[in-house]
Amino acid sequence: MKLVMAVIQDKDSNRLLQALGEERFQVTKLASTGGFLKEGNTTLIIGCKDENVDDVLQIIKDNCSQREQMVAPISPMGGSADSYIPKPVKVEVGGATVFVLPVESFYQF
Amino acid sequence: MKLVMAVIQDKDSNRLLQALGEERFQVTKLASTGGFLKEGNTTLIIGCKDENVDDVLQIIKDNCSQREQMVAPISPMGGSADSYIPKPVKVEVGGATVFVLPVESFYQF
Amino acid sequence: MKLVMAVIQDKDSNRLLQALGEERFQVTKLASTGGFLKEGNTTLIIGCKDENVDDVLQIIKDNCSQREQMVAPISPMGGSADSYIPKPVKVEVGGATVFVLPVESFYQF
Ligand code: NI
Ligand code: NI
Ligand code: NI
Repeated sequence: MKLVMAVIQDKDSNRLLQALGEERFQVTKLASTGGFLKEGNTTLIIGCKDENVDDVLQIIKDNCSQREQMVAPISPMGGSADSYIPKPVKVEVGGATVFVLPVESFYQF
Repeated sequence: MKLVMAVIQDKDSNRLLQALGEERFQVTKLASTGGFLKEGNTTLIIGCKDENVDDVLQIIKDNCSQREQMVAPISPMGGSADSYIPKPVKVEVGGATVFVLPVESFYQF
Repeated sequence: MKLVMAVIQDKDSNRLLQALGEERFQVTKLASTGGFLKEGNTTLIIGCKDENVDDVLQIIKDNCSQREQMVAPISPMGGSADSYIPKPVKVEVGGATVFVLPVESFYQF
């Protein structure tokens, strides 16, 4: 048995929960914030058998990897600057920090 | 030293906190939800000496075990169906998922 | 790799996050309450290399140790008792409960 603790971005949370649920992994979602560096994250704890850790890691990787996204920036001049078309910019989104913890014993009551 | 992490239903939370407190166990309650499968749960972390793990597990079992409860269902026909008496139905309530984690070292400052 | 889990008082939280951030430690903040004994606490999880655990512990100790504080008590007689000057009283504030957990493996995606 292992306890997988994954800190991910809020925006990837539903997709990851969906993917883990499809494979019948039991997940608990903890309310969290990223200290003062990364607001808006979620911490998931997933209990799984040793032989399933790689599956869980792959699902996290598939759904939460850091990636670039094109974002339309808010025009600093607002609605009045109608001759100005803001260029989309690349931002890094997603990413997961994952700890696999040993479990000494596990119970369900 | 061990760290006992227990995911339980909200409804069993106060009773379990009371029972653990009576035995002087130190408990921290984390806000949590059960992914999308089980809403309304609570995650407790309890630090305890190795020799007290069995006590903690027994207290969790005594206060949170899954059990059947008779629940009066909401009548689908509302208040107008006064000749209709809904039968109580059995539902499963409670339950605890518990991980006992090894602790490498423990400090109080 | 180790996972340091620290339960501290809310009031020490920002100062500790600041101090940990200055040393580039990655911190996740979980919403928590202290069961029914100590309301208003915060649980931080900090992933760090084995050789940095002592640094993290020292920073927690420096910023969160239990200490005495003089507090002006609220006068039980309210604003009408203008001849009564309440004496400040000593209260214990702060304190940290810290678990260092072994990490089997660690990933960033
Ligand atoms: Ni195992
Ligand atoms: Ni021990
Ligand atoms: Ni290590």
